[in-house]
Amino acid sequence: MTTTATTLKGQPLDKPILDAMLRRRLFYTPSFEIYGGVAGLYDYGPPGCSLQANIVDLWRKHFILEEDMLEVDCTVLTPHEVLKTSGHVDKFADWMCKDPKNGEILRADHFVEAVLEARLNGDKEARGQKVEEKDDPKKKKKKAKTEAVKLDDAVVKEYEEILAKIDNYDGPELGNLIKKYQLRNPATLEIPSDPVSFNLMFQTSIGPSSNVRGYMRPETAQGQFLNFAKLLDFNQGQMPFASASIGKSYRNEISPRAGLLRVREFLMAEIEHFVDPQAGKKHTRFQDVAHVELVLLDRDTQLSGKTDTRKVAIGQAVKDGLVDNETLGYFLARIHLFLEKIGVDLSKMRFRQHMANEMAHYACDCWDAELLTSSGWVECVGCADRSAYDLSVHAKKTGAPLVVRERLEEPVVIDEWQVDIERKKFGPHFKKDARFVEAVLLETSQAERQKLAEQLNSTGKVELDVAEVAGGKAELNDDIVKIAWRTRTENTREFTPNVIEPSFGIGRILYSLIEHNFWTRGSDGGDEARGVLSFPPTVAPTKVLIVPLSSNAQFRPHIKRISQQLRSMGVSNRIDDSSASIGKRYSRNDELGTPLGITVDFQTLQDGTVTLRDRDSTTQVRADESKILDAIKAIVEGSKDWNKVASELPRFEGQEVDIASR
Amino acid sequence: MTTTATTLKGQPLDKPILDAMLRRRLFYTPSFEIYGGVAGLYDYGPPGCSLQANIVDLWRKHFILEEDMLEVDCTVLTPHEVLKTSGHVDKFADWMCKDPKNGEILRADHFVEAVLEARLNGDKEARGQKVEEKDDPKKKKKKAKTEAVKLDDAVVKEYEEILAKIDNYDGPELGNLIKKYQLRNPATLEIPSDPVSFNLMFQTSIGPSSNVRGYMRPETAQGQFLNFAKLLDFNQGQMPFASASIGKSYRNEISPRAGLLRVREFLMAEIEHFVDPQAGKKHTRFQDVAHVELVLLDRDTQLSGKTDTRKVAIGQAVKDGLVDNETLGYFLARIHLFLEKIGVDLSKMRFRQHMANEMAHYACDCWDAELLTSSGWVECVGCADRSAYDLSVHAKKTGAPLVVRERLEEPVVIDEWQVDIERKKFGPHFKKDARFVEAVLLETSQAERQKLAEQLNSTGKVELDVAEVAGGKAELNDDIVKIAWRTRTENTREFTPNVIEPSFGIGRILYSLIEHNFWTRGSDGGDEARGVLSFPPTVAPTKVLIVPLSSNAQFRPHIKRISQQLRSMGVSNRIDDSSASIGKRYSRNDELGTPLGITVDFQTLQDGTVTLRDRDSTTQVRADESKILDAIKAIVEGSKDWNKVASELPRFEGQEVDIASR
Repeated sequence: MTTTATTLKGQPLDKPILDAMLRRRLFYTPSFEIYGGVAGLYDYGPPGCSLQANIVDLWRKHFILEEDMLEVDCTVLTPHEVLKTSGHVDKFADWMCKDPKNGEILRADHFVEAVLEARLNGDKEARGQKVEEKDDPKKKKKKAKTEAVKLDDAVVKEYEEILAKIDNYDGPELGNLIKKYQLRNPATLEIPSDPVSFNLMFQTSIGPSSNVRGYMRPETAQGQFLNFAKLLDFNQGQMPFASASIGKSYRNEISPRAGLLRVREFLMAEIEHFVDPQAGKKHTRFQDVAHVELVLLDRDTQLSGKTDTRKVAIGQAVKDGLVDNETLGYFLARIHLFLEKIGVDLSKMRFRQHMANEMAHYACDCWDAELLTSSGWVECVGCADRSAYDLSVHAKKTGAPLVVRERLEEPVVIDEWQVDIERKKFGPHFKKDARFVEAVLLETSQAERQKLAEQLNSTGKVELDVAEVAGGKAELNDDIVKIAWRTRTENTREFTPNVIEPSFGIGRILYSLIEHNFWTRGSDGGDEARGVLSFPPTVAPTKVLIVPLSSNAQFRPHIKRISQQLRSMGVSNRIDDSSASIGKRYSRNDELGTPLGITVDFQTLQDGTVTLRDRDSTTQVRADESKILDAIKAIVEGSKDWNKVASELPRFEGQEVDIASR
Repeated sequence: MTTTATTLKGQPLDKPILDAMLRRRLFYTPSFEIYGGVAGLYDYGPPGCSLQANIVDLWRKHFILEEDMLEVDCTVLTPHEVLKTSGHVDKFADWMCKDPKNGEILRADHFVEAVLEARLNGDKEARGQKVEEKDDPKKKKKKAKTEAVKLDDAVVKEYEEILAKIDNYDGPELGNLIKKYQLRNPATLEIPSDPVSFNLMFQTSIGPSSNVRGYMRPETAQGQFLNFAKLLDFNQGQMPFASASIGKSYRNEISPRAGLLRVREFLMAEIEHFVDPQAGKKHTRFQDVAHVELVLLDRDTQLSGKTDTRKVAIGQAVKDGLVDNETLGYFLARIHLFLEKIGVDLSKMRFRQHMANEMAHYACDCWDAELLTSSGWVECVGCADRSAYDLSVHAKKTGAPLVVRERLEEPVVIDEWQVDIERKKFGPHFKKDARFVEAVLLETSQAERQKLAEQLNSTGKVELDVAEVAGGKAELNDDIVKIAWRTRTENTREFTPNVIEPSFGIGRILYSLIEHNFWTRGSDGGDEARGVLSFPPTVAPTKVLIVPLSSNAQFRPHIKRISQQLRSMGVSNRIDDSSASIGKRYSRNDELGTPLGITVDFQTLQDGTVTLRDRDSTTQVRADESKILDAIKAIVEGSKDWNKVASELPRFEGQEVDIASR
């Protein structure tokens, strides 16, 4: 079995080699490993931590600063009531089933997917076809075992269609599939129990008397919604505006897998863009991005059991109604540009639209930016239109006015039926029932009011259905309530904004970026292939490696001065004065993704020149220290690339031999 | 009652005015406020978020980059076993007692402190002395009521001595104080129950079957300790080195108070500096900071019931043994320099040594950097010598070698008694007891071995106390074990590093910094005093405000271009083109702590000049756009201050009137 994943240079991706390298260089590591580890928890070591910080820094510049968003930092701890209202207590769940024999807990959709894929692979084997190994993040770590059994062509088609829309099934449907196709747990050959819902939030209690039930937030969004009124005020009442937040979120995954793709604690960067729904969700800067071409996989294509994509300019996609509105389209394009900027391989990126049953409970449309890795297509950014869902439910629950009040340029004149309550009589008449009767009365539609008005006019009284009142009916006389046809002038308009939410999983982006930038350097003399991470200088964990040719003490002042100068320019650098050969020291830094290297040698002592090495081509130039520092600055800031620098400064060949001979 | 707290300009600090301003400008706000809020949880709005990011950024530069520390990002979720081993499950607790009448839960030390202080205040009132209001963070929000009752002079002295060492009492001692002095809950006049221990960690469970008990980490340190061996390897085996981490931690405080000083979720920045204990914990850069003068309050002074400080150069303090060692001293000085850099008022800073009972269970010495605020002295940075405690307990529990192996320059020759076990006979002879007997045998001291050797020589057998063996004794013959005097040469040395841990509470620093930089601008014409936050440009949330004189459309291209140029220089800025007067717009930004303001007016349209305003002096200069941008860059980078800029560029007087006339 082979994997279809490729490196930056199109070589087949050798996942175990990459994994070993990431481990050796401490990009990330299982948390609590000396205690045996806990599934789904990872720590970032120095290069991973720096890579993450650089991605976050670019994110902040690309989104928050360029668009003047309002950044907030809200708490992870969240009381029960908030997440009950938002729907997470009831609906933020996955379906899990249990093996009746060994008690193993299986995530239902992953289980169905794994068994059907194993059967399809078995069929291919039986037909003598090549079987591709797909290390799918949606699948349980332990794969279903493949047996070479040929299937009917019709069955193959059925399985393939199920798999294409696997995200569309709910628990009972998954249960039906399990029974219909007799899907058995390979470990025990038992059919697992019917799927039950498992809530993914970590629960805790807040305060010494354990009386406030709470959760660790599953997304950063709710804190932003709850602060909406304050943020609008801070923004001096101006619409549209966006808030943004970068912080940890938590999901108690049923079956986390090895690696960063499905973890229980993760860094998110979320934007909540608040927009007036009445204006068709237009965006003033849409024309700036309308030309950006995106690779789209729409909902209908998937429902038909296919995965064909098409490349469309976002301007056209919105025009055609493929993407619902300008604001959603604007952010899809901005997401595309961000991922391009940090170094994602554009040939391994697509935007996939969610199917109806797949969408989160709050969403009315959603597109995911997916990146292709050795684990298949991985959802890295979600871009959902949450409509007015969140603001509405929180406003209803708390009574807080999470609305925008806008002065109308032209007052609106409205003719309507109005209810007048005779307060002095109404309260004493209904006593404790008064507020229920009033609520029903005020919620009546114009048509109902017209009827009530006619009845009051003809009989002098009306009867209302009020569930809370004894007998379920309330009788009102025309001395207590009147309903009149009047004209009203409105000078302000009140509305609940809709929310477009681009939501970034930083860890998934970081891992995909590593795969997209990984390749191995061909070896001339039968050596082991050497790994390289060709990160763009902007995201590379360290920008410059500084190496003295040897441990000669005369090199030290040069090394120290160069390092301090780079630091004062804001360019991160590391000195490696270990005793390893220069070639080995550079190889180590190729694995760390360090784009540039300075060597200080005996010539430096004579004429003050140093060499600068390019990670990707391994070519070197030699010049005065100051010229080299200028070149570094230009490369790190993105104003020049290596080819430009190499064309301007004298090429240096001296150490090539040394570098090759590790 | 008056408060002793003062503003930056020495004015009495009006806390309600400051609180109202921070709220109005959304520095921070109670989380979930529309749901009634949860005690001890706060969200940061845009200016607070930016201020926090700038403090963290400077911290990263001052510590991580300047000292080449290894930054890591570990998970908040932590399994039970780790925190059991570290001692947090058993010892990370506060003492709480309960009111028998209304069930109110009180933190015992705060309760004792509050009641004794109320009695002392009552005594002062009865003596006709002035009573100072101290809004102490250690005290419960609801203060004990003061009654004017005169106390005996001896009782006053007793109370004062107790208060000076209030942090030194454990639960039973606090219980004794409550009974001895008949301390009653002012709400019910009842004496509360005996203090019981309450663990401060938030508990949860990890995984679908709820079988892994876990906590939200109470500090970021443990993740760093568990990764020690990997970090040492990443550092190519070189010692000493430091790891560092910036992240959220969680403590389920019994009685959080309003504001940022005692919260349940908070951002920490922690350094774990690993050092060889044998070398006397020297630090190679100590001489660079030896001259730095610190204000110290030592342990003995506090135990004698006093709070007198002394100003000492850290070099002298280490020499005198006041501060235990160079590495601890080095970090105290670096902490001082960091706090100075971000704009802390040095006259409101001291380092207080922990008393013996006050120290965390892992510490062998600890100094806190405390900042004086309207809530008294607030612990903002702890600097503890954790010795080898954490690495040792985790190594013992897991068997992982959390040690450093160092090649000795000169091999060490050791003469010693060595134990030789005849494996072939030993195992079969003792069977399942073998490992217990071996353990006892190998743990014997040299003196014991000498005795055993003599006994074996004379009688051919020895008896060992082995608790796990039936009868508690194991008999060994000289064909099973031999003890011989031999010479051994050691080429490597193995040791467990000690840890010096500077630990920063970012939220407390942020709040103290706000108080230290707050003042009110005197009003000429009886206006309300206007608030100013004089943050240094480096930490100010926004560096530059850009205002057009009016909403005239001709100003727009200038405003936009200036904003983009500043952004490309990495200088954060905001445009305020609202209809408020220029004076009002500047006032708003004085409250936000924005140090500089650019005005675009009609003269700009003619000659391309703009004005630049200094927040603190409200003076302005006028020059070409490019000159103004250069001046801004110099000020933000810290290479020039306003006085220098004002001496180089022409002064502008035009809008003073407008600014004053709000």
